Amino acid sequence: MLSLLVATALFQQNPNADAILAMRKKGLTELGAYSMLDELTSKIGGRVSGSPEAAKAVLWVVKKLEQMGAENVQQMPCMVPHWVRGKGERATLNTVHPLSITALGGSVGTPKGGIDAELVEVQSLKEAEELGERGKGKIVFFNRPFDPTLPQTFAAYGGANDQRVGGATAAAKSGAVAVLVRSMTLAKDDAPHTGAMRYGDGPKIPAAALGIQSAEMLSAAIKKGGAKVKLVLNCQNLPDVPSANVLGEIKGSEKPDEVIVMGGHLDSWDTGKGAHDDGAGVTQAMEALRLMRALNLKPKRTIRVVAWMNEENGGRGAKAYAEYAKTAKEKHFAAMESDSGGFMPRAFGISEDKLEKAKAWLPLLQDFGIEKFVAGGGDADNGPLGAVGAILCALQPDNQRYFDYHHARTDTIDKVNPRELEMGALAMASLAWLLSEDGDSLK
Amino acid sequence: MLSLLVATALFQQNPNADAILAMRKKGLTELGAYSMLDELTSKIGGRVSGSPEAAKAVLWVVKKLEQMGAENVQQMPCMVPHWVRGKGERATLNTVHPLSITALGGSVGTPKGGIDAELVEVQSLKEAEELGERGKGKIVFFNRPFDPTLPQTFAAYGGANDQRVGGATAAAKSGAVAVLVRSMTLAKDDAPHTGAMRYGDGPKIPAAALGIQSAEMLSAAIKKGGAKVKLVLNCQNLPDVPSANVLGEIKGSEKPDEVIVMGGHLDSWDTGKGAHDDGAGVTQAMEALRLMRALNLKPKRTIRVVAWMNEENGGRGAKAYAEYAKTAKEKHFAAMESDSGGFMPRAFGISEDKLEKAKAWLPLLQDFGIEKFVAGGGDADNGPLGAVGAILCALQPDNQRYFDYHHARTDTIDKVNPRELEMGALAMASLAWLLSEDGDSLK
Repeated sequence: MLSLLVATALFQQNPNADAILAMRKKGLTELGAYSMLDELTSKIGGRVSGSPEAAKAVLWVVKKLEQMGAENVQQMPCMVPHWVRGKGERATLNTVHPLSITALGGSVGTPKGGIDAELVEVQSLKEAEELGERGKGKIVFFNRPFDPTLPQTFAAYGGANDQRVGGATAAAKSGAVAVLVRSMTLAKDDAPHTGAMRYGDGPKIPAAALGIQSAEMLSAAIKKGGAKVKLVLNCQNLPDVPSANVLGEIKGSEKPDEVIVMGGHLDSWDTGKGAHDDGAGVTQAMEALRLMRALNLKPKRTIRVVAWMNEENGGRGAKAYAEYAKTAKEKHFAAMESDSGGFMPRAFGISEDKLEKAKAWLPLLQDFGIEKFVAGGGDADNGPLGAVGAILCALQPDNQRYFDYHHARTDTIDKVNPRELEMGALAMASLAWLLSEDGDSLK
Repeated sequence: MLSLLVATALFQQNPNADAILAMRKKGLTELGAYSMLDELTSKIGGRVSGSPEAAKAVLWVVKKLEQMGAENVQQMPCMVPHWVRGKGERATLNTVHPLSITALGGSVGTPKGGIDAELVEVQSLKEAEELGERGKGKIVFFNRPFDPTLPQTFAAYGGANDQRVGGATAAAKSGAVAVLVRSMTLAKDDAPHTGAMRYGDGPKIPAAALGIQSAEMLSAAIKKGGAKVKLVLNCQNLPDVPSANVLGEIKGSEKPDEVIVMGGHLDSWDTGKGAHDDGAGVTQAMEALRLMRALNLKPKRTIRVVAWMNEENGGRGAKAYAEYAKTAKEKHFAAMESDSGGFMPRAFGISEDKLEKAKAWLPLLQDFGIEKFVAGGGDADNGPLGAVGAILCALQPDNQRYFDYHHARTDTIDKVNPRELEMGALAMASLAWLLSEDGDSLK
């Protein structure tokens, strides 16, 4: 660890310290990421791929980028899945107790009039697949909780998430007629957390997330015996529709054909407002560009914002961008993503071969909470750009609160602290600047 | 920086890893600090020194420590100031616009019927002192904001707080009749933030904090000209009353006369519920002891919880404890404090001469967010124990949100994330355990 004095000295000696300090002062005074996120979440709200809100969000980013003086603002088209929730989804336990549910993204709906069936509780995909006759005609209830003893909530998510993604496929193998899945969260409230599910080759049965309190109630009822649930889901998968990534940039003054991409994903689920996931990442990248433009900073390499479309249920925007990058004349020098919430930064993931050399930049990033670089850096949207040689970087904010709101109706602007969000924007702006001006030091 | 693999290896090889891992698993499952903080804030609430609530809080800690099987649970008496807010405090701008105010702790009240006076706005103590005739008979309004460009909010607080503590004394020198002070916060809401003020030798004039929106409204009215405020404060300073610190411990198995103290302060302001300030610190220390007891861990040195009284407006509990320590037969090996809110840990301050050697413990603390040790460790309550040779340690959680709630009605349990709070408890429990078992390695 560097002592404060050494860190301060290293900061001041660095030729990029002035630019970073200027961005810090302006950013923390104006809190532009929060202003933009407030506008995106309040004027547009949740924005599932293919929805009118997602289309509005595309136009909103275009307008904002133009207003801040970004160059080459454009939409990069892609076709996206078009899943719609419909109205009136609901579930009732034993005809009287309402359960807090919401359809999983990609699920088929129930037959008109709903499904009325007995319940069987399982803890794993394997258990569901092996139910055999005991699963036939039943609603299978996946109730394996997050492991709360893991310090990193993403690890707990990773240990439970297979139930949401693959639960319906596994249960269908035993003849189940629907699945309910305990929400992917450590929160104690009853908000159901949606998220993508996928079907295998077998029958497609409806799948919904269940709030934690509802899950506990249902589990207790099953233990008592005779639990039946009526489930109504009116969601459906419609044909793909056109949508787009949005791009805007500052052209590099010395190496315009070497590009540093930074961004987040513009689509979100419809349950909440997509504030932390991932309005935060999009507006942080936009704020980074806004600060550079407003301060008239001229990067040597091109710095480009990308608001990726359709991260949640298809990754079509990331694929379209990666396809473009493969044949582009420009070189993708680096690609940075923020898709872990607008919380206080703690670290950057970075391509492992750059880890040691990047550490020289830490004194310039510590003001924004960046304590270290860790191996990694490839996330859902920037990851594919590793194939064209881009240095991958991912912002790692603190994650304790992330899954309290993730994909739930609680993912709203009031859960975002304006300064914490801006610190992420400043960390991204600073790292993008360093990659542009001093990126050769990583070679 | 340590790589993950190296860190994991170092963790597993350490003879104290088992105890720390057991505490982590139990703590993150049961979230005991949050349960206790919920009880303290909901059943007792705000607890100003000398108040019935503070007396109840003392008995509550005694009972909790006894219930968890702490040894030598006791009250350590101290006399404390007895300031009471009274009812009906209010302020009105130009007879019609209510201002959001609250008396500063220690302030005298206004004469019956209140004070009705013109306003003069200043930015500093010096400016107030030099008002001369322009201050005579006026209410002086201190309106220098936090510097938002500083990354550390405690630095911004340090740069503004003199107005709250010394504003009344400075303004009285120019013949002012009262002061209003812009709240010490970066939040944009209108909750006024109280806190201690002190009088010098001159006349004692009433002092109140003003919410940020009210401060902006008042400043605009002053610029327009003719701003008058009617201020009514019914607070008063009564004679000192008896109160107490609360202590409880696990006696050391090998070095019972070497004591590791850990704690926070039990008193709070009355505006909110004293959740982050500092119910968090008290319940984190209690949780650390609870985990050790419940897991039947037997420390070599004595580990003692101290819930200090009267940190906010007198520090009498800290003085009483330090007096005791001076003549005690036992040696105070270390003293740890948590008084920066129940947010996610980032670092420990530690006595500078122990800084380098303590770093060997980092692999055991990183799960709880502790990325580094920094020079420091002496805070308001544990600081005086430096004089008897104790190693000083202070938990440093992330501070971006701290002053949003500090001393305001918004300092309530809903602003505390259960896991973030517990991470602080676990960091403290682990460091206390390491000081007990491996403290000789710091020599």
